[in-house]
Amino acid sequence: MQTVSIDLGQRSYPIHIGRGLIDQQGLIAEHVRNRAMIVTNQTIAQHYLDQTLASLGNTPCSSVILPDGESFKNVAELDRIYSALLKENFDRGCTLIALGGGVIGDMTGYAAASYQRGVDFIQIPTTLLAQVDSSVGGKTGVNHALGKNMIGAFHQPVAVIADMSTLDTLDDRQLKAGLAEVIKYGFIVDADFFAWLEDNIDALLARDTQATAYAVKRSCEIKAHVVEQDEHEHGLRALLNLGHTFGHAIEAAMGYGEWLHGEAVGAGIAMALDTSKRLGMIDEPAQTRGLALIQRCGLPVQPPKKMTPELFLKYMARDKKVSAGTLRLILLNDIGHACVSSDFDHSALHATLRHFCA
Amino acid sequence: MQTVSIDLGQRSYPIHIGRGLIDQQGLIAEHVRNRAMIVTNQTIAQHYLDQTLASLGNTPCSSVILPDGESFKNVAELDRIYSALLKENFDRGCTLIALGGGVIGDMTGYAAASYQRGVDFIQIPTTLLAQVDSSVGGKTGVNHALGKNMIGAFHQPVAVIADMSTLDTLDDRQLKAGLAEVIKYGFIVDADFFAWLEDNIDALLARDTQATAYAVKRSCEIKAHVVEQDEHEHGLRALLNLGHTFGHAIEAAMGYGEWLHGEAVGAGIAMALDTSKRLGMIDEPAQTRGLALIQRCGLPVQPPKKMTPELFLKYMARDKKVSAGTLRLILLNDIGHACVSSDFDHSALHATLRHFCA
Repeated sequence: MQTVSIDLGQRSYPIHIGRGLIDQQGLIAEHVRNRAMIVTNQTIAQHYLDQTLASLGNTPCSSVILPDGESFKNVAELDRIYSALLKENFDRGCTLIALGGGVIGDMTGYAAASYQRGVDFIQIPTTLLAQVDSSVGGKTGVNHALGKNMIGAFHQPVAVIADMSTLDTLDDRQLKAGLAEVIKYGFIVDADFFAWLEDNIDALLARDTQATAYAVKRSCEIKAHVVEQDEHEHGLRALLNLGHTFGHAIEAAMGYGEWLHGEAVGAGIAMALDTSKRLGMIDEPAQTRGLALIQRCGLPVQPPKKMTPELFLKYMARDKKVSAGTLRLILLNDIGHACVSSDFDHSALHATLRHFCA
Repeated sequence: MQTVSIDLGQRSYPIHIGRGLIDQQGLIAEHVRNRAMIVTNQTIAQHYLDQTLASLGNTPCSSVILPDGESFKNVAELDRIYSALLKENFDRGCTLIALGGGVIGDMTGYAAASYQRGVDFIQIPTTLLAQVDSSVGGKTGVNHALGKNMIGAFHQPVAVIADMSTLDTLDDRQLKAGLAEVIKYGFIVDADFFAWLEDNIDALLARDTQATAYAVKRSCEIKAHVVEQDEHEHGLRALLNLGHTFGHAIEAAMGYGEWLHGEAVGAGIAMALDTSKRLGMIDEPAQTRGLALIQRCGLPVQPPKKMTPELFLKYMARDKKVSAGTLRLILLNDIGHACVSSDFDHSALHATLRHFCA
């Protein structure tokens, strides 16, 4: 087991990474206050719920099982968590446990942020995407029909337990979607990691244990470093949204769940590369290199055919990075060097949208 | 205009108290970031919405009008606020304005806490209860069918503007309900204020301007002092819940809106006095004195006939002050001296419930 620490003063916590962690007696229980509620989905429950309950030993624990999928990341399903807690008289000293992927993690975290004005929660991410990105950093929330992750809170977990054994049951499409967030870290701040990914992408797709362990750890280190410097996204943290402004528009316009988040981010990074190139920020070899890695992950480099420039602009206007009515995009100065920009030439963005929606 | 400051470091803010404040050009606008959304209800909108919009001058501003009443303090109505914000592309730099009583203030505050993971909000409380209590201190939230204020967040406003002119349109029942929270401050920490209230209760009921101004200011001072010491209710702040454990059970069991919050708190304080007396913490003269002031406010000193000991216990088990399964009550050692207790003799509580539900 390896541990990455995230240093946020009183809200600091460990990210444990390794195989077989769910089965390690006491590892989860040590972070539970008086009582636990596991929140999971139907798919994950079949594989890991009994194991997790067993590992908790004598710790009092209940569970609530939600349907699986991004289309259920909404206030109606959130209410099932609140109702389960209230029916069993869970008090402020309880601890929620998110056992699942990004949807379960975000929803459980938000339930923890808002139940009785805030209780503890533990993240047990079971997808690559959740292990390398969404379980770390305290962004929680649900979707609104009019925009992705529009309702939420910053609420840090008390621990992240990334059991890499859970990736064994992940299907290939989910694995590839998770790689979108892994390569994102290389794109935005770490050219060396990007080069490592170019050398090891085939091993990652083949589920090589060593390569995967390194990719998860390096991703968590980068994310921890960024979040430590800018917990509430006043600046630097926005870089983690490379490809997400385009990607969220795809997810919301297509209907949540049609495209996986990572797939939308893959296409979104391809679009951000294009805009950066049109603005003269990156050269063609860098763009080609970037596109090649996205494609080698098995991710789309084109938005779905249904998307139009108008649809993109409608949903992008609701992006959380919009400030005083001005859209801000994450663009690239080079592989490993992203920046936030609001004063870019919008004709380049429009050219990108026309190009990709032709 | 008088100003009480609440000192919470970076989250500090002023509470302005006076007549005609809504009409004071610029007073509200100075706290708005790039754009404002007024949240109000049908009753208050008729009286004060145009005035508030006029006072905002050139500040870009929209509004959303909710139905009036505690029964609408739920996630369905909350969603109307989110939808209004999203439809008009409000971004993270917006400011919500709560124009109304406690329900509007709590809901708007929670919408502000959770919209795009947190935006600013201003409280313009228009009821006595909201001016002396709910608008100050950052407790926000909505009710759940299974418990009052069970979903929420701590989220401080950027300013509270208590325009006492708005009390002119408050009906007598609401005025009396507000007095429950005023006398609460005397009961818990300020025997001098309690004595002042005994001398001035008739003036307050007659809406005397001077007396009301003093009562509002003194209440805000006490609340500010308590919140400054214990923003997130790890201890001291719980005292502000005198009568509320019983009161919330009445509100939830009766159906939200049947009894006004202040009415339920009035009966709840009477019950807390009874339990304190049975435990030998206060003597009979203190109990009699306490009951007399509640009654002089025109508030009930008995729960509704429908309530049974079983109903009380069922809802009290869900109280937010319950910790590790143990109920904590706010009890009185004397007029002006409240305490939080979890190790009291529960037979006294049961005797109180039997006595009041006979």
